[in-house]
Amino acid sequence: MAPKLKSRSADEELPKYLRISREIIGSIERGRLPLGGRVPSENELIRRYGVSNTIARRALQEAEQAGWVVRIKGKGTFVRQNRVDRSAMRILGFTRNMREAGRTPSTRLVQALVHKAGHSLAVNGRLYVLRGPLCRIERVRLADGIPMMREIRYISLRFCPGIQKQPLESSLYDIYEKEYGLQLSQVDQILSAIEVPDDLLEVFGLRAPVPAFQVEGVTFCGKEQILEMEDSIYRGDMYRFSVKATR
Amino acid sequence: MAPKLKSRSADEELPKYLRISREIIGSIERGRLPLGGRVPSENELIRRYGVSNTIARRALQEAEQAGWVVRIKGKGTFVRQNRVDRSAMRILGFTRNMREAGRTPSTRLVQALVHKAGHSLAVNGRLYVLRGPLCRIERVRLADGIPMMREIRYISLRFCPGIQKQPLESSLYDIYEKEYGLQLSQVDQILSAIEVPDDLLEVFGLRAPVPAFQVEGVTFCGKEQILEMEDSIYRGDMYRFSVKATR
Repeated sequence: MAPKLKSRSADEELPKYLRISREIIGSIERGRLPLGGRVPSENELIRRYGVSNTIARRALQEAEQAGWVVRIKGKGTFVRQNRVDRSAMRILGFTRNMREAGRTPSTRLVQALVHKAGHSLAVNGRLYVLRGPLCRIERVRLADGIPMMREIRYISLRFCPGIQKQPLESSLYDIYEKEYGLQLSQVDQILSAIEVPDDLLEVFGLRAPVPAFQVEGVTFCGKEQILEMEDSIYRGDMYRFSVKATR
Repeated sequence: MAPKLKSRSADEELPKYLRISREIIGSIERGRLPLGGRVPSENELIRRYGVSNTIARRALQEAEQAGWVVRIKGKGTFVRQNRVDRSAMRILGFTRNMREAGRTPSTRLVQALVHKAGHSLAVNGRLYVLRGPLCRIERVRLADGIPMMREIRYISLRFCPGIQKQPLESSLYDIYEKEYGLQLSQVDQILSAIEVPDDLLEVFGLRAPVPAFQVEGVTFCGKEQILEMEDSIYRGDMYRFSVKATR
């Protein structure tokens, strides 16, 4: 089950060790080298790429320094668990999720705009409509400086008048609760597996598309009252979602 | 936000209209053309590929006949909702999930083997261990003849002695309940977004890797008793997962 490491023409001018380490990292990002799985050894890299052992060693060191693999003496090199687990069952903001994972969250506000028109979303076979006016907020969320996801939220201005003037680089969940006294009751979400869209490659610092989760959701406050809708892209190489099914 | 349609060298020998329709379908499979989104019109295809209107029309007809797009008179061509929604909150077998979605399920048994060794899986920060002996079952599940997912299950032979002799092309959940009197109580799962692994491309009838969900899970019967573990690949172009978060 050794994954094929494909070369990318854009990387042709890089030093060989860097090209090899990028191919290893690319295979991890795309899920072709599984978590905990064995990464090709120095000897395998020497055979596969026809390089010297110095270059093979530097390639593995590079992937280790970038945080993707861990080398265990006498055992080999393995893919590190680098993904944050996100419970899909809890109403859990990005900020708290990252703190619980021991990472430092930060936020880059891209845009906040007031729209007159509403927004709609079909979840679980039901069409939900959020009436305008609403505030469309686009943000990139980072952990330890690494872009983790890009979120777009459509927030009801009936529930949150003037939210566009709030400090939108902090937790929206905090703003809902502390500024508007709103208690979130439920979030219905749909998860799709897609490729990271082209317009996000640079934002995420990626050289080629990797798998991602598209998360579309409706957030309710009180009984069936729609507070906001979400349409976000979570990097597949940075996230896993956990769920529990019961009867 | 018009997606870039990349040409694939392997398709070079196909008739032009088929190449164009394959690129459209490829963009949908990879999530680059979103559900309900507009597909390039005949005129756009003519401009982009320098083809005649006959070829552009045939390309769109081809994508429609394959079930990926729907043409609405006077409005344009749109991506059809072709994915099955799977609730991640319910203990729900494939068979029932497909029937509820109005599709006809079938199963191809690839392999059933008895292993002495156990199996382990880390979910939600906890390591679960399923002790051997166990039965490893590999199956491809289809709906209306289309491969939807490939599942691998590790089933405890302590709970299900002789399960390898059961008719393994039917519902395992039915076998657990009817043959062994077991009531499933909970399924803990981890969803990852990865590329369809190379060894599954042919099984799934795909020409190039598309995003997929890797689903790893632990199934409990009674209180904390591990009945089985799962490691499956759900096609991203065929599935969406729905979840509800509460406080």
